[in-house]
Amino acid sequence: MRIVTLLTDFGSRDGFVGVMKGILWSRAPHCQVVDLTHEIEPGDIRSAAFVLFNAHRWFPPGTVHVVVVDPGVGSPRPALAVRTARAWYVGPDNGVLSWALRGQKLWTIRRIENKALFLHPVSQTFHGRDVFAPVAAYLAGGGHAEKLGPVVREWQQIPWPEPIQHDNTWRGEILYVDRFGNALTNLPHSLPGWNRPFLFLVRGKTTVRFPAGRFYAEVPRGKPIAVPGSSGFWELALHGDSAARRFGLAPGDPVRLVPAHKGM
Amino acid sequence: MRIVTLLTDFGSRDGFVGVMKGILWSRAPHCQVVDLTHEIEPGDIRSAAFVLFNAHRWFPPGTVHVVVVDPGVGSPRPALAVRTARAWYVGPDNGVLSWALRGQKLWTIRRIENKALFLHPVSQTFHGRDVFAPVAAYLAGGGHAEKLGPVVREWQQIPWPEPIQHDNTWRGEILYVDRFGNALTNLPHSLPGWNRPFLFLVRGKTTVRFPAGRFYAEVPRGKPIAVPGSSGFWELALHGDSAARRFGLAPGDPVRLVPAHKGM
Amino acid sequence: MRIVTLLTDFGSRDGFVGVMKGILWSRAPHCQVVDLTHEIEPGDIRSAAFVLFNAHRWFPPGTVHVVVVDPGVGSPRPALAVRTARAWYVGPDNGVLSWALRGQKLWTIRRIENKALFLHPVSQTFHGRDVFAPVAAYLAGGGHAEKLGPVVREWQQIPWPEPIQHDNTWRGEILYVDRFGNALTNLPHSLPGWNRPFLFLVRGKTTVRFPAGRFYAEVPRGKPIAVPGSSGFWELALHGDSAARRFGLAPGDPVRLVPAHKGM
Repeated sequence: MRIVTLLTDFGSRDGFVGVMKGILWSRAPHCQVVDLTHEIEPGDIRSAAFVLFNAHRWFPPGTVHVVVVDPGVGSPRPALAVRTARAWYVGPDNGVLSWALRGQKLWTIRRIENKALFLHPVSQTFHGRDVFAPVAAYLAGGGHAEKLGPVVREWQQIPWPEPIQHDNTWRGEILYVDRFGNALTNLPHSLPGWNRPFLFLVRGKTTVRFPAGRFYAEVPRGKPIAVPGSSGFWELALHGDSAARRFGLAPGDPVRLVPAHKGM
Repeated sequence: MRIVTLLTDFGSRDGFVGVMKGILWSRAPHCQVVDLTHEIEPGDIRSAAFVLFNAHRWFPPGTVHVVVVDPGVGSPRPALAVRTARAWYVGPDNGVLSWALRGQKLWTIRRIENKALFLHPVSQTFHGRDVFAPVAAYLAGGGHAEKLGPVVREWQQIPWPEPIQHDNTWRGEILYVDRFGNALTNLPHSLPGWNRPFLFLVRGKTTVRFPAGRFYAEVPRGKPIAVPGSSGFWELALHGDSAARRFGLAPGDPVRLVPAHKGM
Repeated sequence: MRIVTLLTDFGSRDGFVGVMKGILWSRAPHCQVVDLTHEIEPGDIRSAAFVLFNAHRWFPPGTVHVVVVDPGVGSPRPALAVRTARAWYVGPDNGVLSWALRGQKLWTIRRIENKALFLHPVSQTFHGRDVFAPVAAYLAGGGHAEKLGPVVREWQQIPWPEPIQHDNTWRGEILYVDRFGNALTNLPHSLPGWNRPFLFLVRGKTTVRFPAGRFYAEVPRGKPIAVPGSSGFWELALHGDSAARRFGLAPGDPVRLVPAHKGM
């Protein structure tokens, strides 16, 4: 019994996700379905890539991850299915799968073209229903890669923003802001020096110092702190409040990691 | 193993839907439950009717669709269960089932009155828990129509707004606005002339032309386009933005379909 | 096959809940998972306590209820698992379990300390993933209380606000405001005199009278009414609108229950 995860920008108002589950359970009655999220801002491929990256490793081997954040739906952009030792990854060829696949050996990358797997007629606006759900059901039922379509060599990728070292400073950026207003960076908390106290500095209009700690409640309420986030990266937080709202943080904002003696 | 779908205006904050699942799985442990949506605006029967209409056909035969959008809960309004070749439809007798049932042969329409199926005492405010969930569990477990209550001849219906032809023009209306701000009309894209380019005109304060295309990304970002929506109807959209917000579109607004040579 | 319910303040944007399900189904593939809610305001322990109180009794015996509303995550606050005849209750030791456990015989209360059950390394920010999900999976699979950790004698509780009688008046308060804007009080509708018509008075800037009725639609749209709510308590409502928004009601606001002849 395989798990299918769904990650879309469909929201929860209109029944679109329910329809995908109707298709999934019509064709693969024993699969289990997990909603990763459907609250991605419409067309926000980068946030979808981050959520998938953050979530996919916690599922059992053979899980089928389906992403439908697809502003180009209906256009000739291909749909992809990628198999690794860990899982199937299915979605439009717009880079949304990139970060989850980073560092994995890709067993096969297929363009999804076999119309026999689709619903008919295929609409130009809802491939979640007509293409991705039936293909996910096929894979959850043990389907074969070669039936999906031809092997692909070239596909769209979003480069992972690697942090850059400069003297005693690491330069990085904010990757994602979560519902609590915590800003997740691309600075791994395994970076050299992480045992010593150091500071994070974020440049917006002003510079804010986030002393490195271990958990939110280590500082008084309303005070900034940087904690080793659950994804393996430093996370900028306010105890009991939203750091993003307070400081106006957004994905792409630059972050610096500096030893304490230098930053103080 | 049957599927039960839930469509309510309960939202997701208060645990009401979770309670319904507790009842369902207490009484029908092997059913599968799909949330169609719980984000219907409180008491918005018409939107609920549209979401059910749009979703129900994608589920396997025998699915039990439960709708609890029920501003008259506790009043003497009856509850109904309707069986067709496709599914069971369960909900209050306020018209919310009308559009899904449109065009189907109705095998039986029952008033739900058999108190032996309910939780006791039946509250006056939460029939989702005390009436609809246990009845859905009963039907998902293979229950019999005649045990529910008497056959009903008269029940409330919301008339489907049929488009009207006038010379070369079809007059219709907006039925629903989805989370992306796309406005779904009641104009089927199988209407005569759909191979030729034509225009949609929407009268609000001004008239907006939506050239007919095939998919959103066919026009530049921020430009209007009418696409053949996934429900079989023309849909008014903006590429990469919300047509409803930009043009102030709402259900009930009039829409006209005009041949290109006339509209240009 | 046991049910696991999840009640968090994680929201639905970031995939956190999906990750918990990944862990649950990796370790207890046959459990059923119900989302009670994930829309608790960040850190609002009291509302979480109410939603659990309101929902837990509707699930089959042996259900595992997991609450992760945990502003102290990462600090040395303990995690608890409590067993009653009805269910397992798992969450941080911050009082969030109090109201659901009220009136139940507690078979065992354990501090969750057995690191062999956890994911490793345990993060300081996401115990939902690293501690609570694997412990819930263990319990859903029939795990034993004594393996969790030591018996606890002292644990944090939130006192239940009992209504107070004063002559012919009961003084109570608003416990919770639901998505419809109905204000749930701590005044049971089994209080003496509930057969006779009486009034509710709420003191804010002004006093509002809610005549006691049975269901919302008993009064004209836009009129206040008090109805016997589905939890066993009087509920302050407006027919077709939000009483909380109209009158500015919030948890903690005082409410009085007065016989009709006195209030009129």
